[in-house]
Amino acid sequence: MRFNLLPTDTAFYDLFGRSADHLVEGARLLTDLLDPGADRAEVAERVREVEHRCDEVTHETVRRLNSTFITPFDREDIYRLAGALDDVMDDMEAAADYLHLYRIEGLPPGVPEQIDLLGKAAALTAAAMPRLRDMRELDEYWIEVNRLENLGDGIYRRSLATLFSGAYDALTVMRLRDVVEQLEAAIDSFERVANIVEQIAVKES
Amino acid sequence: MRFNLLPTDTAFYDLFGRSADHLVEGARLLTDLLDPGADRAEVAERVREVEHRCDEVTHETVRRLNSTFITPFDREDIYRLAGALDDVMDDMEAAADYLHLYRIEGLPPGVPEQIDLLGKAAALTAAAMPRLRDMRELDEYWIEVNRLENLGDGIYRRSLATLFSGAYDALTVMRLRDVVEQLEAAIDSFERVANIVEQIAVKES
Amino acid sequence: MRFNLLPTDTAFYDLFGRSADHLVEGARLLTDLLDPGADRAEVAERVREVEHRCDEVTHETVRRLNSTFITPFDREDIYRLAGALDDVMDDMEAAADYLHLYRIEGLPPGVPEQIDLLGKAAALTAAAMPRLRDMRELDEYWIEVNRLENLGDGIYRRSLATLFSGAYDALTVMRLRDVVEQLEAAIDSFERVANIVEQIAVKES
Repeated sequence: MRFNLLPTDTAFYDLFGRSADHLVEGARLLTDLLDPGADRAEVAERVREVEHRCDEVTHETVRRLNSTFITPFDREDIYRLAGALDDVMDDMEAAADYLHLYRIEGLPPGVPEQIDLLGKAAALTAAAMPRLRDMRELDEYWIEVNRLENLGDGIYRRSLATLFSGAYDALTVMRLRDVVEQLEAAIDSFERVANIVEQIAVKES
Repeated sequence: MRFNLLPTDTAFYDLFGRSADHLVEGARLLTDLLDPGADRAEVAERVREVEHRCDEVTHETVRRLNSTFITPFDREDIYRLAGALDDVMDDMEAAADYLHLYRIEGLPPGVPEQIDLLGKAAALTAAAMPRLRDMRELDEYWIEVNRLENLGDGIYRRSLATLFSGAYDALTVMRLRDVVEQLEAAIDSFERVANIVEQIAVKES
Repeated sequence: MRFNLLPTDTAFYDLFGRSADHLVEGARLLTDLLDPGADRAEVAERVREVEHRCDEVTHETVRRLNSTFITPFDREDIYRLAGALDDVMDDMEAAADYLHLYRIEGLPPGVPEQIDLLGKAAALTAAAMPRLRDMRELDEYWIEVNRLENLGDGIYRRSLATLFSGAYDALTVMRLRDVVEQLEAAIDSFERVANIVEQIAVKES
């Protein structure tokens, strides 16, 4: 247990919470893509807007770090956590953009399951951010995110096996794979957020 | 030279040694794949089992980190080294799984040489872990792993040139490439382990 | 503001400057590839030579870190910055090598714009390294590099859309894409250098 004799700037908790809320919103927009009638150009555009707002929160976090004397935990960990949350959003944005950019019809195999996992990981992450204040019950959060990432890994490999099963030509495999891979990267990025939270908890405990 | 006035928990050395031993075992199982008569489903399954055991050591390392007051070197470096050792195993497991999952016949170009390098890097890593205790003779280890990684880079690029030589159709190139790329990633991950060890040695010297 | 009561080793600034100068030279050699009459084997060879010299600077930085008691900023940040500068060079070397190795005719879509961005990012980075001494005017540098990386992202995605437009067969798409992707990785690596500089500035301010 660490005792702080000086007040720390607690605004960082709010900033992490806002980043995570953007991830929840981004993951929710991805579910719109499951609708066969979705206007993908428009959904991709809305995901990009959320990505820009998430970027702004990240920059605000870095600016505050520049002007704050006492931080609630290591400056570098604040920096890394902000960056990792931002990475998730970038991956989700790229996946939505590829679906639109490559004019993909239907959905690549595994994508609905991946988007479902992303929604769950986003909700867990958003629920965990406020708990950074007292570093409690964070174990459950990162164990569960690690479990989701393992599930994601299985979905990803089964998607690849399907893509290479002979049912698709090579150019189609490449295009569909890009989407599947970006969603898999987003799930991995959620795990990296959880790992950073775990490291912070290790240090502060 | 750093003097510790309090006893430190030396169990971490054993844990790193156990992780590295799992890498030696994983690399040895990969050599079984060089046998034309190998049951690849079974080898992939055995690699996965080693990967699970390696995961358990990683988790034990993190749990111990949570409950240990004085560590032999920076908490964060322990965390990073444990993670990097785990990454090697994940890459090797993925390579074995792709060979099986994609029902690849024969072996992609360069794979026997890559597996040979992995065996050497694993042996060097396992021999280096106990030397973390006194931080001696680690230079040779990381210089040699860096040299292996450079060799691996050459093998990787020659494999790609062969794959794109016109002898393979596009879907086959993609499938074979995934295996070659995962093995290359494993060699890179061994280098990252060596780089973390180097950084630890820099700090502690 | 941090006051150092003991003299620090300022040679690190020179070493970072030399690494960055190699990146400027590497990016300049890439522009030679835009010439339709270029001997690509020879250009790739010259880029490899610059890469070797850059490697030597990186190793000298690490050796000096081993033998220096007081460093101008965190040892680990020196290590990471040296590594990140080295990564840019590796990515540029790989791109030049693929162009030659795959016997690509002409240039993949977007490559001239990417090489132009790399030249700008290299110049900005080389100009920023000396400013690490007083940590001033670094904001402009990383904001501008982040802007270039965003531009690079747009170029990259337009290249992919062109590659998948139906004008190229699958094997050609794969070969051209490797070049485009390595150049995109080089731009991303420049951003990572800028992010590390930003983190150093955050800590030292």
